[in-house]
Amino acid sequence: MESLLAADLGGTNFRVAVINADGEIRMRRSRPVPLSKHREEVVAAIVDLASECLSEFKPYGRPKAFGLAVPAVVDAVQGAIVSAPNLPELDGYRVSDKVGERLGVDVFLENDATAACIGENWKGVSQGYANVIHVTIGTGVGGGIIIGNEPMRGADGTAGEIGHICVEPDGVKCGCGSNGCVEQYASARAIVRMAKESGDFSDMQTISSKRIYERGQGGDESAQQIFGAAGRYLGIALGGLVNTLNPDAIVLGGGVANGWDLFYPSLHRELEYRAFQRPFERVKLLRSALGDDAGLFGAARVAANGLRAPTAG
Amino acid sequence: MESLLAADLGGTNFRVAVINADGEIRMRRSRPVPLSKHREEVVAAIVDLASECLSEFKPYGRPKAFGLAVPAVVDAVQGAIVSAPNLPELDGYRVSDKVGERLGVDVFLENDATAACIGENWKGVSQGYANVIHVTIGTGVGGGIIIGNEPMRGADGTAGEIGHICVEPDGVKCGCGSNGCVEQYASARAIVRMAKESGDFSDMQTISSKRIYERGQGGDESAQQIFGAAGRYLGIALGGLVNTLNPDAIVLGGGVANGWDLFYPSLHRELEYRAFQRPFERVKLLRSALGDDAGLFGAARVAANGLRAPTAG
Repeated sequence: MESLLAADLGGTNFRVAVINADGEIRMRRSRPVPLSKHREEVVAAIVDLASECLSEFKPYGRPKAFGLAVPAVVDAVQGAIVSAPNLPELDGYRVSDKVGERLGVDVFLENDATAACIGENWKGVSQGYANVIHVTIGTGVGGGIIIGNEPMRGADGTAGEIGHICVEPDGVKCGCGSNGCVEQYASARAIVRMAKESGDFSDMQTISSKRIYERGQGGDESAQQIFGAAGRYLGIALGGLVNTLNPDAIVLGGGVANGWDLFYPSLHRELEYRAFQRPFERVKLLRSALGDDAGLFGAARVAANGLRAPTAG
Repeated sequence: MESLLAADLGGTNFRVAVINADGEIRMRRSRPVPLSKHREEVVAAIVDLASECLSEFKPYGRPKAFGLAVPAVVDAVQGAIVSAPNLPELDGYRVSDKVGERLGVDVFLENDATAACIGENWKGVSQGYANVIHVTIGTGVGGGIIIGNEPMRGADGTAGEIGHICVEPDGVKCGCGSNGCVEQYASARAIVRMAKESGDFSDMQTISSKRIYERGQGGDESAQQIFGAAGRYLGIALGGLVNTLNPDAIVLGGGVANGWDLFYPSLHRELEYRAFQRPFERVKLLRSALGDDAGLFGAARVAANGLRAPTAG
């Protein structure tokens, strides 16, 4: 059976897998992202880990292509990174060519949030839905969108920045330069900020969204209110998207999605209040089934589709 | 040359035109929408006006198909109206069949805001752009979206309700059941509300957005502030959409778009502040070129495409 090499280049970890055409992970490896983040070292790290997988997998065959999910705006046709806020050294770099030459395999780039959306749509919880919004709620809030069974990239490949929908016009300053973005109200970092502002968690040595969640699960009302606020703000942002895009499903992934039981009730209530009845009744609110692997599955799918798509440029 | 019959069923007026394949209007007629709004009378009005056009146009040929833009959620495949908030009698009605049988021509339905978006993309200001958001700012705020050169309808055909993006979570109550929708801050009705609240227009017998605009043009600061606020709120809603969809262009039409010079500066400033740099630099903010005719052109285009599309259902 055809197999594919897939990689997901995260902020701290870099993961590679061999996945077959049926969506089974045959092998996986992970390694920390080089601290220097020089472009040559990042490419060398990708090539090393991929080579390791290729040579160990050799008895079973050779992967047909390599899909690479990166935290960046990508030019999929040119195989180049357009802009990588967390890996600025890679801006403008033709990663596909560099990696492909050294591995002797075709490399297809994809934005990591879009890859996660594609992965869930292929082998995860949104299978069979033609119009999907994928929200990754971690340190920040990221997103990917599928419309009519096709990943939506927009004019420059920057589409999907759901985290930067304004939900409080005079709200908290955001790293993007704007303020009141939903990322400032629903991310792990936002949950920690709200917890600090409440003054109710000063007994904790380190305040993390996970530990706030655990307190909430244990019955702590302040923690429950914080997750409730996060859910409400997600509902404001997603309500606008449901009215605008009329999706079949919204998939929520990322670390904060583990707090599902604490934020889902207010998210659902807010969405029902904000969205029109018909698209509200249509849309399924789903929790990611693949978790951290969604991007790897998406990268494998991108590699498989890339092989079949006509070569452009 | 192939000609097409096109109609746009508005809230008060109903307009029919014969438009040829090059986008020239060869004939046009309009008539008030029947006050009763009974489904048979609405269909009779459509058939009457269309027949009038067909018989007058007879010496020049027979239009190949009929495109009908309606203020409703439509099921384009079934040719049925799913839900028409302002013409509830038409809910669930197979208008295409009813009109088609009596005229002896294939009828293709389209939502009016989507039709306006298609019309501007065919013969108006957004020609050549693959990803377009069309905003109609009239009594309310409506919208249509084109993604990858295709009208985006969503799972149920309800997509494009841009007017019901929340821009003030604790803001003004909206007719949709939610509150703080951009329609409550940027529509003609919202401009009148803000003018009344300011107390600065009590000398006017009837306060209309047009008359407030005229005052603003004459230097009245209160009027200028009201249009400035409308532009700012439009910028908040559109900033989120620019981050999410990365469109090539946003087209603004409808009566309030005539106040362009008074709201454009604050809209542009807010969009620059809210949106990421790359998609902000990409997106063109354009004023509708076809005005009230955008929907007619879109309906003609839908008719032409419908003839060429494989028949479904």
